[in-house]
Amino acid sequence: MIVEGINVIRELLKSDEQIDKIIAEDKPNNEIQILIDTARAKRIKVELVDEFTLSRIAKRDTQGIIAFIAGFRYSEVEDILNFAKNKDEAPFIVILDGIMDPHNLGAIIRTCECAGVHGVIIPKNRACEITDTVYKTSAGALFHMRVAMVTNLTRTIEELKECGVWTYALEAGEKSIYDADFTYPTALIVGGEGKGVSRLVKESADEVLSLDMFGRVNSLNASNAGAIAIYEVVRQRRGK
Amino acid sequence: MIVEGINVIRELLKSDEQIDKIIAEDKPNNEIQILIDTARAKRIKVELVDEFTLSRIAKRDTQGIIAFIAGFRYSEVEDILNFAKNKDEAPFIVILDGIMDPHNLGAIIRTCECAGVHGVIIPKNRACEITDTVYKTSAGALFHMRVAMVTNLTRTIEELKECGVWTYALEAGEKSIYDADFTYPTALIVGGEGKGVSRLVKESADEVLSLDMFGRVNSLNASNAGAIAIYEVVRQRRGK
Repeated sequence: MIVEGINVIRELLKSDEQIDKIIAEDKPNNEIQILIDTARAKRIKVELVDEFTLSRIAKRDTQGIIAFIAGFRYSEVEDILNFAKNKDEAPFIVILDGIMDPHNLGAIIRTCECAGVHGVIIPKNRACEITDTVYKTSAGALFHMRVAMVTNLTRTIEELKECGVWTYALEAGEKSIYDADFTYPTALIVGGEGKGVSRLVKESADEVLSLDMFGRVNSLNASNAGAIAIYEVVRQRRGK
Repeated sequence: MIVEGINVIRELLKSDEQIDKIIAEDKPNNEIQILIDTARAKRIKVELVDEFTLSRIAKRDTQGIIAFIAGFRYSEVEDILNFAKNKDEAPFIVILDGIMDPHNLGAIIRTCECAGVHGVIIPKNRACEITDTVYKTSAGALFHMRVAMVTNLTRTIEELKECGVWTYALEAGEKSIYDADFTYPTALIVGGEGKGVSRLVKESADEVLSLDMFGRVNSLNASNAGAIAIYEVVRQRRGK
């Protein structure tokens, strides 16, 4: 998989991700030169090519540097729970039920990384996978985030409940996110664009929580809705 | 300006926006037929054309219906303040300092509408204007939202301060959004993609507030950051 852009590759170089090769412009600016030096210090193969050649290899605006990496390495749900355990924190998981738009997926994963979410769970079917657009819109946050891809979301939710994790579907409902206690082990389930959280997933969740709405449209962009709920968990847990 | 899509046109028909004409498929499905009937009841001219003709008029996937409207009617900052006054609410304003991406602009305006924000202020230069993509990504929220476009953001901020509005720039800083009191008249300033809130604007704001960050990337998508802060205002004001 090719990933592109200065910010993304800066994050890539900070991560443990396996980088097969980096290709950069042969007239690098300062920012790119720093990345080239960092890569070489890590013994990563760096090729310098002219601008035209680079643009032919890449799909979009490369900002002068691209990297070849192996496909995204998915984690297991167990890895996510162990990661929380090792940090001695109550698990904080975000389940994405059918996000189709890679920009939304990237934005949510970026917010998850900033908020200290331990891991993200996505379904194998009817959802956006981790593509290079997701890398790009996550601003490199993907390199630092555990993402598990599961076959059956409802089964995963049952397993989480057995592990003592409270599962909350974000959907129109009677109870507000502000009336939930997120200091306990928490999994937030964010629905996809248009359809929201699917019926079976909603039924298997412990509770349905909604965002307070005061307008006439009364439906938020999926990544915005996710971000609001994710940071309510942050707010409740801060200082604890 | 052409706006497209079932949800957008449903919101359009609920608003006071002036609609010049609606064009729909001559074999409308139920959803579109309801919109056609609504439009005709409002004495709006509706033309039925075949699918091919419709796709030639529109730029994207139309979902079978498009509307011609006059360009977006911007409000004045005063209108926003009066709107809050008439609702007997402490003003709640969102200032967007250089959002360039129409998808981010649409998503934030959508969140503003849901959160009961009284109005949005955008600068005339170096920022995305209200285009048909913004209409689309706002899911029609734009038809219910006051947006003022100003020449000089710092001057507008000074005027808001004189009217007793507290102005907060969202940027990396020492004070958290959770330590501010948003029950007073509030204007949140959200920075653009990449560059954040510009220096002069930040200096003219009363305070710089930041989101708690626990990751390695430590920068959020602009619309996600805005949504989190907007809903912190909602949380603090609920039940008041």
